[in-house]
Amino acid sequence: MLYFNLNKFTMDFKIKGTDGKARVGELILSRGSIRTPAFMPVGTQATVKAMLPENVKSLGADIILCNTYHLMLRPGENLIKKLGGLHNFMNWEKPILTDSGGFQVMSLSGLSKKSNEGVEFKSHFDGKKHFLNPEYSIKIQKALGSNIMMCFDDCASFNSDKSDIALSMKRSMEWAVRSKEEFDLTDGGLLFGIQQGGIYEDLRDESTKRLIDIGFNGYALGGLAVGEPQNQMFKVLDFSTSKFPSDKPRYLMGVGKPDDIVGAVLRGIDMFDCVLPTRSGRTGQALTRRGPLNIKNSRHKYDPRPLDPDCNCYTCLNYSRAYLHHVKKAGEIISAILLSWHNLHYYQELMIDIRKAITEKNFKNFFNDFYNLQNSGDIPIL
Amino acid sequence: MLYFNLNKFTMDFKIKGTDGKARVGELILSRGSIRTPAFMPVGTQATVKAMLPENVKSLGADIILCNTYHLMLRPGENLIKKLGGLHNFMNWEKPILTDSGGFQVMSLSGLSKKSNEGVEFKSHFDGKKHFLNPEYSIKIQKALGSNIMMCFDDCASFNSDKSDIALSMKRSMEWAVRSKEEFDLTDGGLLFGIQQGGIYEDLRDESTKRLIDIGFNGYALGGLAVGEPQNQMFKVLDFSTSKFPSDKPRYLMGVGKPDDIVGAVLRGIDMFDCVLPTRSGRTGQALTRRGPLNIKNSRHKYDPRPLDPDCNCYTCLNYSRAYLHHVKKAGEIISAILLSWHNLHYYQELMIDIRKAITEKNFKNFFNDFYNLQNSGDIPIL
Repeated sequence: MLYFNLNKFTMDFKIKGTDGKARVGELILSRGSIRTPAFMPVGTQATVKAMLPENVKSLGADIILCNTYHLMLRPGENLIKKLGGLHNFMNWEKPILTDSGGFQVMSLSGLSKKSNEGVEFKSHFDGKKHFLNPEYSIKIQKALGSNIMMCFDDCASFNSDKSDIALSMKRSMEWAVRSKEEFDLTDGGLLFGIQQGGIYEDLRDESTKRLIDIGFNGYALGGLAVGEPQNQMFKVLDFSTSKFPSDKPRYLMGVGKPDDIVGAVLRGIDMFDCVLPTRSGRTGQALTRRGPLNIKNSRHKYDPRPLDPDCNCYTCLNYSRAYLHHVKKAGEIISAILLSWHNLHYYQELMIDIRKAITEKNFKNFFNDFYNLQNSGDIPIL
Repeated sequence: MLYFNLNKFTMDFKIKGTDGKARVGELILSRGSIRTPAFMPVGTQATVKAMLPENVKSLGADIILCNTYHLMLRPGENLIKKLGGLHNFMNWEKPILTDSGGFQVMSLSGLSKKSNEGVEFKSHFDGKKHFLNPEYSIKIQKALGSNIMMCFDDCASFNSDKSDIALSMKRSMEWAVRSKEEFDLTDGGLLFGIQQGGIYEDLRDESTKRLIDIGFNGYALGGLAVGEPQNQMFKVLDFSTSKFPSDKPRYLMGVGKPDDIVGAVLRGIDMFDCVLPTRSGRTGQALTRRGPLNIKNSRHKYDPRPLDPDCNCYTCLNYSRAYLHHVKKAGEIISAILLSWHNLHYYQELMIDIRKAITEKNFKNFFNDFYNLQNSGDIPIL
């Protein structure tokens, strides 16, 4: 059964090429096109941490993700609406995807009460009580001016019993209906459904069917990259992605490490978001084509070479490992800026390479080369 | 008596205009010209905090200051020399002035022993013992590749007894001779002497005479802006500046607030450095033509206006006070970036206006307008 009329959504998703399950495409929104497979930098509190929005854009990001949970608590969606919406507020003109807050009320807040109606929780900022449910989550996302909204979902821990994960999935599907109903009340943006069901094929299948019945602009996989081994996540993708409508974008939430992304693209995923490049940038981890490296390591202290001699990013063109080691050790803000810059550049270059490989139907070779280089270790010590 | 041969110094200082004691000029060094009166942003640990060097340059800085004390301790002058010198290390091509470490061993370190020979101190990083004296300070500054080096001086507290300040000044003058002797051993850079003597005209005069006897490329005033009232500092300038050679630059170390700078230019000072614009940027204080404002103040929470509606800096053109309030409250790095950017822009615009006013022999009017606007209070609440 199809509950809702999808006609009012203005969105175009063009699949421009495929190679096996991997797809290259373009998601066209009024604020700009998103080249897929796409990586969305995370701007939790209305800023991609340590970066200026112009630089995030210049590195190739077509869209960023912002967090409903954080923004509803501070500065509040009404303030942002009053200030002209999230794009204007944070000086980012391109599309924004907002999550629903569902995951954060479980993982960050002091969860105090959960029922079919919604979730009562305590803010992790000040302990104050708040309430979130599907209707309110969508209202907030609309107030923010989000271009792609996410259904409010119930996230079970990945190591819960199957019966608990089943209950949580079923509740998420009921909340998906309510999210859609609230979404349909006024115009604006797109709405993606979120598949749940842990690692269980029957539950994921049931979830997929119910989401397709409701009808969404895109389909996300939730409850993955939450601690389970990578091969379990890939197994879920193996049996899941082809069951989503092929003409709609597929989004793997919160993923991931470079090899997670490449492996997920191979399995038919179109969109990703992850805090890793910016969080690593602040903790001193550089992500490179040859794998991660920790700039705090003393072997970098005298090294005049850049993080990656073949990288063309601002950081690699202008700063030695020795300098990056020094400013990280000295606790300087420029350390977070330069490493976040490099990491985001690396991620967007990876997406360019992925799209090129799919377009050229060369993804299998790309995939092998990528893994070999990632596992080859850092450039030899001078 | 003139101890030293000054012929080897390649420097040109052109006074292009005067208005009363105020001077506008150009200090020409091989790495670039410094428009005076000049404000030097502070890059203590080989970074102007929260800023990229290209942005510091784009805001109008012709020269920055770096701290010998910090860099000798971390990462060490030999490492920086090995990496091609400080300019290359930190990606800053224009001139760099280095202080001598004299002030920091008193103010920051665990000072353990002081004699005419030099100063033994404990690093404020790890408590390890180090030694600094005039010869070693100049050696370090040369290893860094400094363009303007400062004599190693002995800094007394401004509220010491006159007899202690006299002894400290006399030691500083002996150290100035030794700094100059060490400086003369090899080529490279310029050397500025530092006048000491607290608030006492006779001591400052004696110091000035001895520095002129030694002969330097420029003359600095030390031991000011260390806690004494502004009018006492200005009094020292009133009786001091005209006694320095008129054809050499005069540098007021560690100054200051915008009104300190304007008042010191009026009294014949050519160069300034201060951590205020960047430190304030990190603590949430914006410096504007209408005086300082604290962005954490709740009155800015909903304010859609920029820090200064008449400011053309990147921050004011793109971000509201409401956004700046939010990101400061949220502890986001972009807050330090945007406020430091605005503050450094404001300082460099102030220097442009100062130079223009002197050139046009209009400094008295500029001075009055500046004070009136600084004291007019923030733009009225919406």
